[in-house]
Amino acid sequence: MRATAKAHTNIALIKYWGKRDEQLILPMNNSLSVTLDGFFTETTVHFRDDLETDSFTLNGEEVSGVPFERVTKFLDLFRDYTGKTDLFAKVESINHVPTAAGFASSASGFAALAAAAAKALDLNLSEKELSIFTRQGSGSACRSVYGGFVEWEKGEREDGSDSYAVQIAPQDHWDIRVAAVILTAKEKDVPSRAGMKLTVDTSVFYDGWLKSIDQDLRDIKAGILAKDFEKVGSIAEANCLKMHATTLGAAPPFTYWQDTTLGVMHEVWQLRKDRIPAYFTIDAGPNVKVLYLPEDEEKILARLRSVKGVEDIIVSKVGAGISYK
Amino acid sequence: MRATAKAHTNIALIKYWGKRDEQLILPMNNSLSVTLDGFFTETTVHFRDDLETDSFTLNGEEVSGVPFERVTKFLDLFRDYTGKTDLFAKVESINHVPTAAGFASSASGFAALAAAAAKALDLNLSEKELSIFTRQGSGSACRSVYGGFVEWEKGEREDGSDSYAVQIAPQDHWDIRVAAVILTAKEKDVPSRAGMKLTVDTSVFYDGWLKSIDQDLRDIKAGILAKDFEKVGSIAEANCLKMHATTLGAAPPFTYWQDTTLGVMHEVWQLRKDRIPAYFTIDAGPNVKVLYLPEDEEKILARLRSVKGVEDIIVSKVGAGISYK
Repeated sequence: MRATAKAHTNIALIKYWGKRDEQLILPMNNSLSVTLDGFFTETTVHFRDDLETDSFTLNGEEVSGVPFERVTKFLDLFRDYTGKTDLFAKVESINHVPTAAGFASSASGFAALAAAAAKALDLNLSEKELSIFTRQGSGSACRSVYGGFVEWEKGEREDGSDSYAVQIAPQDHWDIRVAAVILTAKEKDVPSRAGMKLTVDTSVFYDGWLKSIDQDLRDIKAGILAKDFEKVGSIAEANCLKMHATTLGAAPPFTYWQDTTLGVMHEVWQLRKDRIPAYFTIDAGPNVKVLYLPEDEEKILARLRSVKGVEDIIVSKVGAGISYK
Repeated sequence: MRATAKAHTNIALIKYWGKRDEQLILPMNNSLSVTLDGFFTETTVHFRDDLETDSFTLNGEEVSGVPFERVTKFLDLFRDYTGKTDLFAKVESINHVPTAAGFASSASGFAALAAAAAKALDLNLSEKELSIFTRQGSGSACRSVYGGFVEWEKGEREDGSDSYAVQIAPQDHWDIRVAAVILTAKEKDVPSRAGMKLTVDTSVFYDGWLKSIDQDLRDIKAGILAKDFEKVGSIAEANCLKMHATTLGAAPPFTYWQDTTLGVMHEVWQLRKDRIPAYFTIDAGPNVKVLYLPEDEEKILARLRSVKGVEDIIVSKVGAGISYK
């Protein structure tokens, strides 16, 4: 009843932005991501008959409050599924992702937790089933079940049984790189869940966002299969800008961007003017991720490092799906 | 056949953003502005029988090319109106507005030009008629015919005869201040006319923008009449953010914002967190205008001056309409 799993985080090229069901975490639109080699979580789940409650350590420190409740509520899904409602677990996570600053540490976190819990309980889940479990911990985490390029199909059913991730292309299909440009380690003003909900509920641009997704998805999937970097990059960048535009139409309006965020965006645009192909994407936080091809790595990193306010850059290749120790 | 007129620029609180007729400059939506005391243009128009072409000096320098053509094309309206198609003019403008960096120098410029031309020709136009002429030189200029708080009614007719500005409240109705925070004097990457057209033609958010205008206008007019600063400021700021969001949904997407633009926006938000009422608005360029009340001037200017990248701040009161020398 003990297992250890490792899952990588992922970066969405077509953003997950808005829930149609808050409880089951069912999205308003399909999304598409690249799993990232550089950021991951390793989690050990140990179910034991002698425990009267779950416990959770992150990087060796005991976690309580809301983050703990999210974990124990997530484990309830497995207790319900197995009928073993009195079985509690010791959860130990090591997180190789900077927390709560626009990096989806919850993605690798819940994917690793789901995989370790399922293995500890010997459930022999399919990847599809594992993706559905994972989704209910953190939406975008369901994409981290797979390596490579991954689409989360939103599904139509009310019970969420058709809302899970599928692989579009495997890890070794295409060697693109993602530079995570870290601008600040401070906590976000607006957490992504709250910002997402405010936007869905109030933004005058949310309809326009949803209507544009199908075309973006069709085009970017064709681009990924054809390894057309300009196509994939420009669609991803435009999709990210649309997502961030929706927050400016919320009531009250808000933005995840800092001055330094704009500084990196303009540097990426300048790189393209200088005929160096680079594209950015930004999640619900100030940090910027820059997509590029391996042959341009040196030039691009030098240019990004020169931008004011850049604290650190962490480079990642395309990553693998879940693995077990 | 010689007259001199002075007109002030204006800053839109509800933005003019998109044309339904490019030739007549008819807008997609009503807009609303404050005329600004601090920025103005003085123009002398001298129609003379002995001229074979128009001439135009700006701040003492001869102007040619596209800016000159806009002026001479504008004077054609007066030649057509009077039937004096062979009458040309010497135009001398002194501009007290930094050009082409997000300040609507074209607004004070065309309002002063229209007023001086009409007076030089002894046309005795009503303010409504003058506003209609002015509009055809530069859309937002039609609001600079009046002082105080001014609405440009988009009108419905195809010939533009019902698309002109009206005064909502006079200059002395309410003493609010506008700090023009100047971040850079460099030319804009995307001129506002081209950006506006690209956005109307391609943005997935343009419908959402248009749908939100009526409510914004109703609320801000009530706020102006009631001198409710929080209401007026928050509507103006939200309206500006919506306008800028539409550019992020254009194909290709673009933004007028620089890193320093975001820096000033965040400082204004921090001022409000510190319970100092200040709101921003941004036109089609990187500079930020901050709205505040006279009693907070000292504190607000000190805070704005502390923001990185702020080159200059020019304070303005509410301004008057057209005047003649």
